[in-house]
Amino acid sequence: MRIAVIGGDGYLGWATAMDRSRQGHDVVVVDNFARRLADHELGTDTLIPIRPLQERVQAWHEVAGKHIGMEIGDVTDYEFVAALVRDFQPEAIVHFGEQRCAPYSMIDRKHAVYTQVNNIVGTLNLLYAIAEYRPSCHLVKLGTMGEYGTPNIDIEEGFIEIEHKGRKDVLPFPKQPGSFYHLSKVHDSHNIMFACKVWDLRSTDLNQGVVYGVATEETELDERLATRFDYDGVWGTALNRFCVQAVIGHPLTVYGKGGQTRGFLDIRDTVRCIELAILEPPPPGGYRVFNQFTQQFSVLQLAELVQAVAKEMGIQAEIQHLPNPRVEAEQHYYNAKATKLLDLGLQPHYLSDTLIESVFHKVQKFACNVRPETIIPWVNWRRTNTARPAWRATGLMAAK
Amino acid sequence: MRIAVIGGDGYLGWATAMDRSRQGHDVVVVDNFARRLADHELGTDTLIPIRPLQERVQAWHEVAGKHIGMEIGDVTDYEFVAALVRDFQPEAIVHFGEQRCAPYSMIDRKHAVYTQVNNIVGTLNLLYAIAEYRPSCHLVKLGTMGEYGTPNIDIEEGFIEIEHKGRKDVLPFPKQPGSFYHLSKVHDSHNIMFACKVWDLRSTDLNQGVVYGVATEETELDERLATRFDYDGVWGTALNRFCVQAVIGHPLTVYGKGGQTRGFLDIRDTVRCIELAILEPPPPGGYRVFNQFTQQFSVLQLAELVQAVAKEMGIQAEIQHLPNPRVEAEQHYYNAKATKLLDLGLQPHYLSDTLIESVFHKVQKFACNVRPETIIPWVNWRRTNTARPAWRATGLMAAK
Repeated sequence: MRIAVIGGDGYLGWATAMDRSRQGHDVVVVDNFARRLADHELGTDTLIPIRPLQERVQAWHEVAGKHIGMEIGDVTDYEFVAALVRDFQPEAIVHFGEQRCAPYSMIDRKHAVYTQVNNIVGTLNLLYAIAEYRPSCHLVKLGTMGEYGTPNIDIEEGFIEIEHKGRKDVLPFPKQPGSFYHLSKVHDSHNIMFACKVWDLRSTDLNQGVVYGVATEETELDERLATRFDYDGVWGTALNRFCVQAVIGHPLTVYGKGGQTRGFLDIRDTVRCIELAILEPPPPGGYRVFNQFTQQFSVLQLAELVQAVAKEMGIQAEIQHLPNPRVEAEQHYYNAKATKLLDLGLQPHYLSDTLIESVFHKVQKFACNVRPETIIPWVNWRRTNTARPAWRATGLMAAK
Repeated sequence: MRIAVIGGDGYLGWATAMDRSRQGHDVVVVDNFARRLADHELGTDTLIPIRPLQERVQAWHEVAGKHIGMEIGDVTDYEFVAALVRDFQPEAIVHFGEQRCAPYSMIDRKHAVYTQVNNIVGTLNLLYAIAEYRPSCHLVKLGTMGEYGTPNIDIEEGFIEIEHKGRKDVLPFPKQPGSFYHLSKVHDSHNIMFACKVWDLRSTDLNQGVVYGVATEETELDERLATRFDYDGVWGTALNRFCVQAVIGHPLTVYGKGGQTRGFLDIRDTVRCIELAILEPPPPGGYRVFNQFTQQFSVLQLAELVQAVAKEMGIQAEIQHLPNPRVEAEQHYYNAKATKLLDLGLQPHYLSDTLIESVFHKVQKFACNVRPETIIPWVNWRRTNTARPAWRATGLMAAK
């Protein structure tokens, strides 16, 4: 099967590209390196070094004997997207190619506008290119569980049957996204649903939870195949960040009370979910939504899990509650459904002490790369224009 | 009160600006003339001639003795928006300044992208400028009833209480918009709701129905104060278009079966609704939605109403069912609530034979301006790239 992975140089895109290639598919990675560029902008970096895409592809060829294609370009450029779909004729497009970070979108107006325009236009372009050059292509689009917010009712998978004044309908689940980034994903979802309807396209919208871990079967084959690992206050997600904090003796930073509950999943399950979505596409005109996570935790629970594993490893980790830089409920009901991927055969890797330990080992190996200044969150939801922290303005890091 | 009317040179914006000025407010019209430019692009024009904004403002001063300010610029330009809000310090901003036409957004990819980027970025810019320079300013934003689509349950005003598996919450009403234009309004609504929450802004989102009529108290004071009147297949809305068709002996073109039911209102009620929204703003942090229409009709009902009035005036009008260029249900349940504006004191001008007759008289007066070629819809929802009709490509109109 011909599969294009947009954003295939990123954290999950690269892991997905290798996984699909290993399974014998004809994979092309599409990327504009926006994520690498943003590291230069913010003074952040992946903890685990990653190689240039060209070197990754070369290493993959040496190690796995498979070829992954590369198309360097920007999906907001329609000429580029149209040529890609017309010439490669993908049977599936996995779309990771968006600005994917909530704090980044909340830095200031420019970052909010960039996030929404980039994500919306890229997805619109893909929809048009598919409709014009390969209408049977299945668009597998990465959304986020954050599209739903934290309603006081159970979260269903994309749609909900509503009974109202004696009548019934199945309608899109109401969305209450919590950042301009999350909003952009809601906008995408509405656009995709509409395009499937008017042009008979097919799409799977994967509302993914927070991903943790860094190792898939393929990343472990060779150091040059590693995928990125973010731990700082802008890009890092909870569990990965906590592990880094524990290793370098930084308190585990919980925002507010820590009762914020979210869906989480192992990076190995991400690549498996993508596979399952691809293997059973919806019919033409079909737009479906899968909630893609395997377990729910509150942020405080996660911190305590990491703290416990750290203790077993002889590391004393303190939990520190920071003033919450986000505007969000810190104690709330949360019960989200995620059974459709299980029905398709997903066998989850549940979070275990062993997994956390393995992340610890990775982090310890690359601990010398940590930039401690970058860990404290500095983007404030309540401000329209966050002042840069000193290390960003001066470039000066603390002496190690 | 200082009021900025964004899009104040347009059909409803100009009427609103005069109405607010007449009531003694300090009004500034903000416009980039995108609507006038688009007429040059498509070869369309307003039936009733309109004057350049400068002349309108001059005439208003002569006739009403009031001054309306002008700020010529584009709300997608943040420097412009920021200066406007910082210097004028508006207490209310009425935001009509968006690409407001469904068929225009469906012409092709460029028009879809233009519509969404223009509308989203303009509104984001306004939200940031308000938050930065005048957080107490009330944003009165024009949305559309088309955000809701045609669900099989009653449409509430913005929010709906959902009981699900024994729990309850009041959530945003699920949206099923039917064009890239309508989608852009849904995106706006989500962005505005979020901005009100994180920055304590206040906004009223007016989900307006289809507006008919062309006369307000102010437009009738002087020919130079007329507002635009669209009747063609791209810009014209149902009732206005039917009146023109009847007058020039063109069949009344109903798309498909004509069972499409929508909310409608008189242009005089539009300006009154804006007034009511402005007079009682929500508290800081408040985001509220009003459904702004006064009656529901199916498109076929409207055509029959126009046909009946035409008959009384000695005009034989035929109803013609065209293949529906849109993808939409042609027979469906529709029951939308619109009581919040009534509660605030709206006294509707219901559609009457007299109103239709008065539109007929206007149309007859300017019948020589009609370009019959432009009436047939040529934008097809099912295509990604609509071919231009011959009169657009050649510029040749039929001899009159």
